[in-house]
Amino acid sequence: MNHLHRDKLFSLFDEEQSAVVYMKGADLMYRYETDYEFPFRQESNFWYLTGVNEPNFHLLLDLNKQEYHLFAPKRDSQYAVWHGRVKSKEQFQEEYNPDHLHYENDLPKVLKELDPDQIYCLNQEQAEFIEEFDRSTPIDLDELEDAITHCRVFKSDWELDQMREAARVNNIAHTEVLKALKPGMYEYELKAVFDYHQIKNGLTQDAYNGIFASGNNSAILHYVENNEKVNDGDLFLIDAGYEYEGYASDYTRTYPANGEFTGVQAAIYESVLEAQKKVIEATEPEVQMEDLHIQAAKIMMQGLKDFGLLEGSIDDLMEHDIFALFFPHGLGHFLGLDTHDVGGYPKGVERIERPGIKYLRTRRNLQPGMVITIEPGIYFIPALLKPALEDEKQSKFLNGSKLKEMFDFGGVRIEDNLIITDDGYENLTDVPKERDEIERMMES
Amino acid sequence: MNHLHRDKLFSLFDEEQSAVVYMKGADLMYRYETDYEFPFRQESNFWYLTGVNEPNFHLLLDLNKQEYHLFAPKRDSQYAVWHGRVKSKEQFQEEYNPDHLHYENDLPKVLKELDPDQIYCLNQEQAEFIEEFDRSTPIDLDELEDAITHCRVFKSDWELDQMREAARVNNIAHTEVLKALKPGMYEYELKAVFDYHQIKNGLTQDAYNGIFASGNNSAILHYVENNEKVNDGDLFLIDAGYEYEGYASDYTRTYPANGEFTGVQAAIYESVLEAQKKVIEATEPEVQMEDLHIQAAKIMMQGLKDFGLLEGSIDDLMEHDIFALFFPHGLGHFLGLDTHDVGGYPKGVERIERPGIKYLRTRRNLQPGMVITIEPGIYFIPALLKPALEDEKQSKFLNGSKLKEMFDFGGVRIEDNLIITDDGYENLTDVPKERDEIERMMES
Repeated sequence: MNHLHRDKLFSLFDEEQSAVVYMKGADLMYRYETDYEFPFRQESNFWYLTGVNEPNFHLLLDLNKQEYHLFAPKRDSQYAVWHGRVKSKEQFQEEYNPDHLHYENDLPKVLKELDPDQIYCLNQEQAEFIEEFDRSTPIDLDELEDAITHCRVFKSDWELDQMREAARVNNIAHTEVLKALKPGMYEYELKAVFDYHQIKNGLTQDAYNGIFASGNNSAILHYVENNEKVNDGDLFLIDAGYEYEGYASDYTRTYPANGEFTGVQAAIYESVLEAQKKVIEATEPEVQMEDLHIQAAKIMMQGLKDFGLLEGSIDDLMEHDIFALFFPHGLGHFLGLDTHDVGGYPKGVERIERPGIKYLRTRRNLQPGMVITIEPGIYFIPALLKPALEDEKQSKFLNGSKLKEMFDFGGVRIEDNLIITDDGYENLTDVPKERDEIERMMES
Repeated sequence: MNHLHRDKLFSLFDEEQSAVVYMKGADLMYRYETDYEFPFRQESNFWYLTGVNEPNFHLLLDLNKQEYHLFAPKRDSQYAVWHGRVKSKEQFQEEYNPDHLHYENDLPKVLKELDPDQIYCLNQEQAEFIEEFDRSTPIDLDELEDAITHCRVFKSDWELDQMREAARVNNIAHTEVLKALKPGMYEYELKAVFDYHQIKNGLTQDAYNGIFASGNNSAILHYVENNEKVNDGDLFLIDAGYEYEGYASDYTRTYPANGEFTGVQAAIYESVLEAQKKVIEATEPEVQMEDLHIQAAKIMMQGLKDFGLLEGSIDDLMEHDIFALFFPHGLGHFLGLDTHDVGGYPKGVERIERPGIKYLRTRRNLQPGMVITIEPGIYFIPALLKPALEDEKQSKFLNGSKLKEMFDFGGVRIEDNLIITDDGYENLTDVPKERDEIERMMES
C-alpha cells in the first residue's frame, strides 16, 4: 500500500520540474564500539514511502516522471551464511514493487541518467552522501521534510488498519497486566507479563521504553527503572505499547495494586477520568488540541478543589498556572510510525511558553485521519510542589498541610488512542478504566 | 567492588608519571532523529571501572596519586519531573565511593589542578572532548585500551559471581523454552517465553539479539527475524541470553520441535554433542582456543564421515578446509561485560586466514579467571555447499547425492559457558543437552 504514500508525496511537488527525491534507508545500529546490534527498525520516513524494513536500501523518486527507483544492497554468500537468505532482484521486485529496481552500486549511474536540476533530501547527512556522486546539482533540505510530514499526519485507511492491529494487541497485553497485578510483585515482573503478550502475538518491537511505576514512582513522568517492589496500598501506573508494522500503540492505565482504590486514590482517579472522558467526548474535527488541554486542566482543578487541596476560582487557578503543578505535561500527541509522531506543529506555529502546556506536542486543528493520544494526569511531584508552597503568588491557592500529606501519593494518568473521524473519533483503546470495572477484574 | 578494578588498572601504569586517565561514560542513545530512547546501558569499560550505570558521567584517574575523580551530571527540578529523583552529591558519594566527587562542570578545573604531563583516552572522540579543556597536554590513545582490556580478560571473584547469576537465570529461561516448545508455535512465541522468564527475574537487558530459529533457519548463524512457524519434524535452535549487572550469559541449544529426534537429526546432533563435550573436557589452563577449535572440527568430521556424507581421511578433510563448510564460525569467544568480550587477540596475534577458523574470536592461551563459550556446530548451508560441490578440490570429499538431501536440514549448535579455573573449568550452563534428557523433558 506504500504506493499510495508515494503518490501523495508526488502530488505535493511540482511535476514540471526536473527534480528527484533522494532518501537513504537506515543501517544497522550498534552499541558504542561493540558488535551489540540493536534489532533493525527502518527509519520511519523511508518505511512510509517504501514498506522496506531491511537495512541498507536507498530510493530516488523522479518527481517529473513520478517514478520510483529502489536501490537494494548487493549481498554475497557470506551474508547468506551469517544473516540469511539472499533475495534475488526478482524477489525484491515482487516484494517491494518499485518502478525500477537497482543494486545500490548503480545509484551514481541512475542519478546521472536522471540528471535532475534539484535534489530534495531529508537532512545534511543524507545530502552529504548523495553529494559524493553529484557535486553540481543544488540540494534542498526543507521541502521534503515538510511534504512527507504532511503526508504522514493524515493516515490512509491501510495505515489505520495497522494501528488498529497494534491497538488490538495492546488491549490484550494491558488487560493481562491488570489481571496479573498483585502487591509484592516487582515492577519488572509486570513488564515481563506485558512484553510476553506483545511478543507472543508477533509484535517484537516496543514503541517506546515502557513505564511500569508503583507508588511514588508513578509521579515520575518518564520512569523506566521498573525495578521496585509494588507495595500493598500503592497505585501502579503502566504506560506502554508496541508497534505493528512500524505503527505504534501507546496507552496508560493506573490501578490500585491491591485491587481496591482507597478514598483518596478514588478521588484523584475520578478527577483524571472525568477529564479524560469529557475531553474525548469533545474530540472532533476542527477542535484544537490546546483547547482540549485547557479543558482537561480545568476539570482536574475542580476535582482537586473539591478534594480540598486547592482554593480559589478555577479562572484564578488557571491564570496562575496552578494546573501545571499537577499536570506538567501535554494532553496528548500525534501517533503513527513514531510514538511522538511528526507534524504536531505546522510551520510558523510555536510552542506556548507556559508551564505544562509548553510540553504539548501538537497545536493543530484536529482533522479526520489524524491519530492522537488523550492522556491527562494528576501527579504529586515534590520537586514542583515544594517551590510552589514557598512561592508567594502560588502558595495562596494551595492547601499546604493537606498537600504535604500527598507527597508520597504518586500520580494518575489515563491515556487512550483516538482516530479522528468525519464526525468525531474512534477510540482504539479497550482496557478497563472505570473504577468498578478495574476492581471487578482484579477480584477474579 | 569496582575499586578492585581500578586498583588493577593503576597497577599497570607507571605511578612515577604525572598522568591521568580520562574516560566518558555513555549518554542516552536515540533512534535516528526521533525521541525513541534506547534503554540506557553503560559503556562497558566505564561500567567496569566505576559501577555507574547512569548516563552523563565522566572520570579522571590520577595515576600518580592513584586517586579516582568521578564527575556526576548536575540535574535540575525538570529532570526530577521527567526522569526521577535527583540524587545529592552525598548520595552519589555513598553509592559510588570515589576519592573525589565533582559535578561535571568542574571537569576543566580539576583537570587544570591535576596538571598532567600525559592524558590517556580510549578513543578519538573522547580525546576530542577533553582537548576542549586542555589543548597542550599530549593524549595517548593506545595504552589505556590495552590496559583495561588486560584487566577485563581476567575476571575477579565478584565478576564471576555476577556471571553465575546471569547464568542461573539463563538456565531457567532456556529450560522453560524447552518445556514450552511445540510444533505449530511461531518462533517469536518461544522468544516471548524466554524474555518473560529473564525479565520476571529482574534481568531486563538482553546480552545480544537472540536467535530463535526453526527448520532451515537454524542454519543461518545470525538469524534474528524469529517470525516463522515451527513445523513438526523441524529442529529448533535457540541462542540467547541476558545480562546481570552488565555481565552476559550466552547459551545455545538445539531441540527437536516435536520432542523426538529423527534418526538423521540424532546422528548430526550426536556429532556436535560429542565434539562439545570432548572439547569441554579438554579445557584447562594453557590450552589454546585454536587447538580446541581444530579438535572439535575433527570430531565432527568423523561424525559426518560415519554418517556417510564425507569421504577421505580426517587429515585430508581438515587440510582441504572441508570442516569449514559445515562449521563456518569460531568455536567460542570470551564472555563478560560484552557478549563478544574484549581481549581475544593479544597484541601481535592475528586471525588465522583460513575458512571457518578465521572467525575464531580468541587465539589466547586459556588462563584461570577467563570466561569462554564453547559452541561447536554443524550446519547445512546451501550457499557454502553448492559451490563446494562444483569445486574440483572439495567435491571429491563430499557425497553429493546424500548431501543434497540435507539442504533443508538446518543446523545444530550446542553452547555452554565456562569459567577457566586453576585445574580445569566450571561449567555455568545447566540446561539439558543429552538427547534422552531433552526428549524426557519434552514428553512431560
